[in-house]
Amino acid sequence: MGFSLLPKEYEFFDMFDKLAEQCINVSKQFCSNVDNENFSTESLHKIKDIEHVADSITFEIFEKLNKTFITPLDREDIFSLAHEFDNVIDLILKISNMMKIYNIDRVNNHFVEVVKLIDKSISSLCDAVRGLRNLKNGAVINNHCSEVNRLESLGDQLRNEAIAELFTGTTDAIYIMKWKDIFQTSEKILDQCDDVAKIVGSLIVKQA
Amino acid sequence: MGFSLLPKEYEFFDMFDKLAEQCINVSKQFCSNVDNENFSTESLHKIKDIEHVADSITFEIFEKLNKTFITPLDREDIFSLAHEFDNVIDLILKISNMMKIYNIDRVNNHFVEVVKLIDKSISSLCDAVRGLRNLKNGAVINNHCSEVNRLESLGDQLRNEAIAELFTGTTDAIYIMKWKDIFQTSEKILDQCDDVAKIVGSLIVKQA
Amino acid sequence: MGFSLLPKEYEFFDMFDKLAEQCINVSKQFCSNVDNENFSTESLHKIKDIEHVADSITFEIFEKLNKTFITPLDREDIFSLAHEFDNVIDLILKISNMMKIYNIDRVNNHFVEVVKLIDKSISSLCDAVRGLRNLKNGAVINNHCSEVNRLESLGDQLRNEAIAELFTGTTDAIYIMKWKDIFQTSEKILDQCDDVAKIVGSLIVKQA
Repeated sequence: MGFSLLPKEYEFFDMFDKLAEQCINVSKQFCSNVDNENFSTESLHKIKDIEHVADSITFEIFEKLNKTFITPLDREDIFSLAHEFDNVIDLILKISNMMKIYNIDRVNNHFVEVVKLIDKSISSLCDAVRGLRNLKNGAVINNHCSEVNRLESLGDQLRNEAIAELFTGTTDAIYIMKWKDIFQTSEKILDQCDDVAKIVGSLIVKQA
Repeated sequence: MGFSLLPKEYEFFDMFDKLAEQCINVSKQFCSNVDNENFSTESLHKIKDIEHVADSITFEIFEKLNKTFITPLDREDIFSLAHEFDNVIDLILKISNMMKIYNIDRVNNHFVEVVKLIDKSISSLCDAVRGLRNLKNGAVINNHCSEVNRLESLGDQLRNEAIAELFTGTTDAIYIMKWKDIFQTSEKILDQCDDVAKIVGSLIVKQA
Repeated sequence: MGFSLLPKEYEFFDMFDKLAEQCINVSKQFCSNVDNENFSTESLHKIKDIEHVADSITFEIFEKLNKTFITPLDREDIFSLAHEFDNVIDLILKISNMMKIYNIDRVNNHFVEVVKLIDKSISSLCDAVRGLRNLKNGAVINNHCSEVNRLESLGDQLRNEAIAELFTGTTDAIYIMKWKDIFQTSEKILDQCDDVAKIVGSLIVKQA
């Protein structure tokens, strides 16, 4: 075997790809739980399992960061990106957990739409993160980031309508309390995706 | 035209003055909405328009920061100050939005007092920020910052009383839920003003 | 009096010991209030008094930090540690305040268990912080930090069960609203202890 031109440090991109894969997985599992209105302990465990895998990958990134002298991106940026990207998955576990605790068995109509936005946002975000390996694709990566930002704004509108309707549609305070929490947490997921997209965007500016 | 003794970098202070102006504007508009118990789409749009202007100014500050080699204050501090100052305006949009979503048409009595505190706090905060241009005024600026801090503590007390009264004054859980959220968000506005005042205060210490 | 071998900078550890002492005090006072279901103004004032003392100690640490050239730990780390450690006490004041505002006179059963976890967590955290003076005790300190982390996970489970039971156990929306807030705030206390433990843990890695 000859001398590799690819520095070992580029393994960071492989690790981010793995994290992206888990992010896609968790979103698919969450969509499936919502579609089937299945918030059983078992379906929650599937989310938890993916979150554990993502945690290990993030931990590996931190470990490698501590041992690597020259990194393909700024050390701080790799740290933030891994940490914030992993948080997307944590928030999907959080909302899943919430739906189990609140004993949800029928999904609010608006929520189905919000979940679709989340899935789209995660998909675009993962495309952006995967693109980082080749920063010459700056324009393409930026498009993915803009899409994440667009979906976040769309989600804000949708959540506003959903919460307004919650308060006018029922006098059941407990129902309102539960769904208000769920909609607010779904907003946090879209915000978190946008935060990660902003980190990716700033990396492109830096390397330009 | 001769050589200007004023370095171009001092334009940062002009930009902060502009941001302060928008902060005053948004507070006046918010007070007027509350006084008239008018949380219509139209009155919300007036808040949104100001928030957009403030966003552009903040963006300009960041752009200028990226292009300027020597800055009149630490780069990091200019960034934090702009970011956190802009957040005050974002929070006023947030609470306005909340009052629209919650379909508020009559204002809780305690809230009128809280809004007065917010207006006073923003006024003192803007005086402090405008003072930064001339750090020799350290003592005067510090007085404005202390006032912001005093109003934040006063706001905490007022909110505690307001929320305690909410729970004893009615059995309408939905009413309580709405106003608890509104009072908690108004607390965040006063906290945010205090955070900005703390940044201003630390700048004075640094330059002393 | 001879020349002291102990550099003056080691006074930082004395200050952290003092902060730990107040943290233990506030936890004991809070436990006692909960045990006696006493959330009177007077019992709240006892918490407030301790919080004020802790604030002064934290302020002293910051003051000393500004005046000291060589510090026994990284400047940034001393700042974070003091700030976040002090936040534990702030949160205990916050939850105490909340219980007063919500006019709590009977304590939810699950809450008694949560409060025990908080007391244990604070006790382990203080052991960890006190250990910093002698970083050769790294392994012992790490054990205390792991214990704080274990209690945080345990607290998450307990809170999930408690909130799930809240929603199934009553139709009193106002009761649910109050205790959901209280349980969520108690979670923040355990999270905050874990954040401080993580800072302590990272100090040990750095000095290893």
